[in-house]
Amino acid sequence: MNPPKTDARRHHDPEVRGFASDNYAGVHPEVLAALAVANGGHQVAYGGDAYTDNLQRVVRSHFGATAEAFPVFNGTGANVVALQAVTDRWGAVICAESAHINVDEGGAPERMGGLKLLTVPTPDGKLTPELIDKQAWGWEDEHRAMPQVVSITQATELGTVYTPDEIRAICEHAHAHGMKVHLDGSRLANAAASLDVPMRTFTNAAGVDILSLGGTKNGALFGEAVVVVNQDAVSHMKHLRKLSMQLASKMRFVSVQLEALLAGDLWLRNARHSNEMAQRLAEGVRAVHGVELLYPVQANAVFARLPHDVSERLQKRFRFYFWDEAAGDVRWMCSFDTTEDDVDAFVAALKEEMAR
Amino acid sequence: MNPPKTDARRHHDPEVRGFASDNYAGVHPEVLAALAVANGGHQVAYGGDAYTDNLQRVVRSHFGATAEAFPVFNGTGANVVALQAVTDRWGAVICAESAHINVDEGGAPERMGGLKLLTVPTPDGKLTPELIDKQAWGWEDEHRAMPQVVSITQATELGTVYTPDEIRAICEHAHAHGMKVHLDGSRLANAAASLDVPMRTFTNAAGVDILSLGGTKNGALFGEAVVVVNQDAVSHMKHLRKLSMQLASKMRFVSVQLEALLAGDLWLRNARHSNEMAQRLAEGVRAVHGVELLYPVQANAVFARLPHDVSERLQKRFRFYFWDEAAGDVRWMCSFDTTEDDVDAFVAALKEEMAR
Amino acid sequence: MNPPKTDARRHHDPEVRGFASDNYAGVHPEVLAALAVANGGHQVAYGGDAYTDNLQRVVRSHFGATAEAFPVFNGTGANVVALQAVTDRWGAVICAESAHINVDEGGAPERMGGLKLLTVPTPDGKLTPELIDKQAWGWEDEHRAMPQVVSITQATELGTVYTPDEIRAICEHAHAHGMKVHLDGSRLANAAASLDVPMRTFTNAAGVDILSLGGTKNGALFGEAVVVVNQDAVSHMKHLRKLSMQLASKMRFVSVQLEALLAGDLWLRNARHSNEMAQRLAEGVRAVHGVELLYPVQANAVFARLPHDVSERLQKRFRFYFWDEAAGDVRWMCSFDTTEDDVDAFVAALKEEMAR
Amino acid sequence: MNPPKTDARRHHDPEVRGFASDNYAGVHPEVLAALAVANGGHQVAYGGDAYTDNLQRVVRSHFGATAEAFPVFNGTGANVVALQAVTDRWGAVICAESAHINVDEGGAPERMGGLKLLTVPTPDGKLTPELIDKQAWGWEDEHRAMPQVVSITQATELGTVYTPDEIRAICEHAHAHGMKVHLDGSRLANAAASLDVPMRTFTNAAGVDILSLGGTKNGALFGEAVVVVNQDAVSHMKHLRKLSMQLASKMRFVSVQLEALLAGDLWLRNARHSNEMAQRLAEGVRAVHGVELLYPVQANAVFARLPHDVSERLQKRFRFYFWDEAAGDVRWMCSFDTTEDDVDAFVAALKEEMAR
Repeated sequence: MNPPKTDARRHHDPEVRGFASDNYAGVHPEVLAALAVANGGHQVAYGGDAYTDNLQRVVRSHFGATAEAFPVFNGTGANVVALQAVTDRWGAVICAESAHINVDEGGAPERMGGLKLLTVPTPDGKLTPELIDKQAWGWEDEHRAMPQVVSITQATELGTVYTPDEIRAICEHAHAHGMKVHLDGSRLANAAASLDVPMRTFTNAAGVDILSLGGTKNGALFGEAVVVVNQDAVSHMKHLRKLSMQLASKMRFVSVQLEALLAGDLWLRNARHSNEMAQRLAEGVRAVHGVELLYPVQANAVFARLPHDVSERLQKRFRFYFWDEAAGDVRWMCSFDTTEDDVDAFVAALKEEMAR
Repeated sequence: MNPPKTDARRHHDPEVRGFASDNYAGVHPEVLAALAVANGGHQVAYGGDAYTDNLQRVVRSHFGATAEAFPVFNGTGANVVALQAVTDRWGAVICAESAHINVDEGGAPERMGGLKLLTVPTPDGKLTPELIDKQAWGWEDEHRAMPQVVSITQATELGTVYTPDEIRAICEHAHAHGMKVHLDGSRLANAAASLDVPMRTFTNAAGVDILSLGGTKNGALFGEAVVVVNQDAVSHMKHLRKLSMQLASKMRFVSVQLEALLAGDLWLRNARHSNEMAQRLAEGVRAVHGVELLYPVQANAVFARLPHDVSERLQKRFRFYFWDEAAGDVRWMCSFDTTEDDVDAFVAALKEEMAR
Repeated sequence: MNPPKTDARRHHDPEVRGFASDNYAGVHPEVLAALAVANGGHQVAYGGDAYTDNLQRVVRSHFGATAEAFPVFNGTGANVVALQAVTDRWGAVICAESAHINVDEGGAPERMGGLKLLTVPTPDGKLTPELIDKQAWGWEDEHRAMPQVVSITQATELGTVYTPDEIRAICEHAHAHGMKVHLDGSRLANAAASLDVPMRTFTNAAGVDILSLGGTKNGALFGEAVVVVNQDAVSHMKHLRKLSMQLASKMRFVSVQLEALLAGDLWLRNARHSNEMAQRLAEGVRAVHGVELLYPVQANAVFARLPHDVSERLQKRFRFYFWDEAAGDVRWMCSFDTTEDDVDAFVAALKEEMAR
Repeated sequence: MNPPKTDARRHHDPEVRGFASDNYAGVHPEVLAALAVANGGHQVAYGGDAYTDNLQRVVRSHFGATAEAFPVFNGTGANVVALQAVTDRWGAVICAESAHINVDEGGAPERMGGLKLLTVPTPDGKLTPELIDKQAWGWEDEHRAMPQVVSITQATELGTVYTPDEIRAICEHAHAHGMKVHLDGSRLANAAASLDVPMRTFTNAAGVDILSLGGTKNGALFGEAVVVVNQDAVSHMKHLRKLSMQLASKMRFVSVQLEALLAGDLWLRNARHSNEMAQRLAEGVRAVHGVELLYPVQANAVFARLPHDVSERLQKRFRFYFWDEAAGDVRWMCSFDTTEDDVDAFVAALKEEMAR
């Protein structure tokens, strides 16, 4: 069978990989194949299709009978839709200072969602009830944006993972103060793989009300979903998604990707693999004198501190980013397509550059 | 060669098509094939990839040397990003009352973009300098949102098409008043096919400053682009796109779809085909006594007025929507995958139902 | 007793008055005197003072036992706070095309409130259930901003006045569709004076849920209030007022002005007087051949059509504005300080200029 | 001369004062008298009056020939208008974590202005170039809201005062990075009195581009002004003010208050007096064993730490607020009407309660 003709031509070398971001990877072949499954014929646009319908069953199998998925385009969109859903016009969001919503979304939560973020510095990207209390006050004070939701990230931006108990404690604390809990799960699968528990264990079973479920970093082309677990906490999600410019017309193609990941174990295979590659990388790095690992390696990220000039030379051989250039901190991300050889070659290169 | 395994299963009948929307269609096989071309290996996320880079060349071949494409997720996103780009915080948008931005975007322009829409009723979805003048005044009046951009739609929501001269007249009029012109081109290809001229003839060559270039309705999975033609009119488009939640991480997969459509003639083949199907449909309908065509059929939409009960019976056989239910007005859309048999069967069914 | 010294000097002629706007007038001496009453000592800021507390009693005497007043700075602020209070993030406001919120607030409802306005042309500035129905539909359609409130203006921008029955019919219609009713009452007193009924008759007794109560045009220095009548319709008004930048720190001075107007009959005296002056003016104008009155003169505004050159000559003698310069339409406003001599002199001048 | 009759009655004891806030005070008699000066006759609304015109002259005498004042209602309004004026849609504001815009405006900057705040912890409410650098980076990164303005507060929320040199260093640093400088001057007069220099010395002469000039806390009824010093930094201020709901219709009454304060030396007399009362208070407190002063007392605020039960008993005798209740920190504010006897009585009461 010949591949279908297309006017698009290959402009890149498909054998080159790096450690810059799990967003640098492409799409997993099984996800790509799923697009063809959903293609052909007419399906109701904007979510009235059979794939989005079926996605609900898949999502409920993971997140319980009350769960409902609202596919969206990207992570920022998922977060801003979800956070609007659980805040009033006067509401504020308590989050870690390092949260993606605070530092990596171009101010979209504030500008598009009208949300005030109440941030808390953390040692490792993880909030605790005690840290939350630094911002959880003043509900009756009209001069203060009202804390209405705590947003946590699992796995965190720093590659750390909350235990189910830690999330449960946060949820109990938040609920006791009348606040909801949102979980930014752009790397939810990595956290589940790391903890070796079902995703529900640290989401709905732990008390999370609403979450952003990541597909892109887990091997999709694009596509995330807002998953509502606590239906009492929200209203008119479809309207919110639409007005937030996150409604896909041919939604079947978002939904079928999530089905491809979540109906079987692809989500877990991809996450496990990238986590394992991060462990292999961390192990290799630990053996390199003069390179310091910065946080526990619990998901698919490795943060390290090393001499600036070494990083710069290494960047000429493998793509990756400085995290805090002044401090010499770098981030190395593994993805579903990172190979053992990739890791070994990288560690070898690191050793070489450190030795120069 | 066996297709790759996937956990996603087919949930729909790929042989069923209707006339509800060009968004009900799937993805053109050549576009789907393009995704595989772009897959594999690592590419810089957020637009730093070779496909987005190449897309610039393709877009310039259509829209001239100053054109720059900013791929986004959907049409609402393209419009809201583009309109923010050419308005100040105090700016307003003059548009037809029937414009998609006014009636079909859930208030996203107002809520997300902070834009005031100054609407004008039109007989056929098309603005004219005279119609624009109903709202083009009061620039110095701080009590009035300042008209800074005229937004036109080509082809219009009513299936009509501006001639290049009509657009040129609008652009000259707008520019003479210091206003920019935005063109919502979610069906730009259909307009070009209808006019049988290159897209540039009625965009940059006619004076349009910025446009929303549609991919989804032209056969893509998803994906549009804001195309800036007048670089002097805008600034920091990337920041605007990001904060508007329209930045795709794996952008190569948006860009390669647009390449698949635009690098060769797929965009035109798809548009011509859907236009021809609409002509065939209109011709068939004209022969049915008691059914009135409402607007000139110039793109891929056919609007008709017929007895309400007939429509309801017909809707049980083919999907389509009422446009104005009280008036008995319906909209029939053709798409790239509409077949002659589809049209003929539909017309036959219409005759049957009218005869009952 | 000598007046207190001040470094402010008189820069204007206090004997010059015109017909441009009821906002051109100053403050009624009884209101000015009230400021001194409230002065001295310390009072809790931001509304915790005795004057704001007392205002609640005064407002309840007018608008019933459930009424609660939230003093704000100006009419735009009152409207935007009130409309946010009765809409969700996805809500829209049905209003007359001529409504102040649509044409005279610089887009503040859209930009600051995130509100979509669904406008309806009217012959005289007044909505009806039939006119409302042009926009009252599509509540389940996520593509459409959801109509959640009808906003009417009493007296209207065109100087017309709804009867209590007309407002009751609107409220019943809106409520039957699950919508709330907001009344923009920047000239509420003029409407009451015109109808010769208490304000409650056409507000809470007619079904209005929330209203903007005007003080400035009724003789205050500045100051309006959002009056909530239907407490079930709103929540956290104080937070909304604050985040909308409408919270006065020394609120006692807003409240005492409203008390000065509303505790006795000053509100009514001022309104009656300005209405009477408008009647006198209309009567005078009717006797001038070639000048056409445009709308029923029911409050303190007189709209007329006359030759453009006459208006321009007249404007050199008395300040007033064109309403629709192309049509030759002008607006003449009377205020609490307009005198019979002012009116007579103006009519005489009009006659002179018409005769030239 | 009898005072004019009014239906407003005195509801408070004008002899009771406390130390809660300079907003608890009333209006200075000279400012009140100014309102009568501006009253009478008709004046063009919305700023076209002789008083607003004259205010420009007064403001230029303080802030230099390029200065232009835009009177607004309150401090939050002034800040949000000013910050919008010097930011693009993608802009962010660097400010101290303790800044009023961050902690006391109910999220108005984010919600109404679409502004992202980039906050920095400070020891004393004052930014420095070094502290600014914690957030001054990433201008080219679309994922980050772009730092475009540094906002400082003078005097700060903690009662400290920047020296002119400190402000000059901040402005030079900000300008070197292409950022503007906004100064929140709700207590600008107190800072000038404290430094014993003209206001221009630490505003326009130090490089400040735009400032919020406070009237209310300086003895006005209400009223602040955005003062633009660097005209190149802004555009269409009147439109911005209007759409931000901060345009007063009878603006003459805002402007004349600012004239009453600024045309002579009332602004300075009021500020000096409140500062002196704070010094007297601080001196008294220093003599009380067990009470710790927290920050340098440089304006009209005194912050102290004392046993919680003492504060609670003292609050029954004099109104004041906890600043950080958990830490036992309180804030005592002096105002233009605080008397030496007030201070002495308060210190005596403090001694008594500490001794119990």
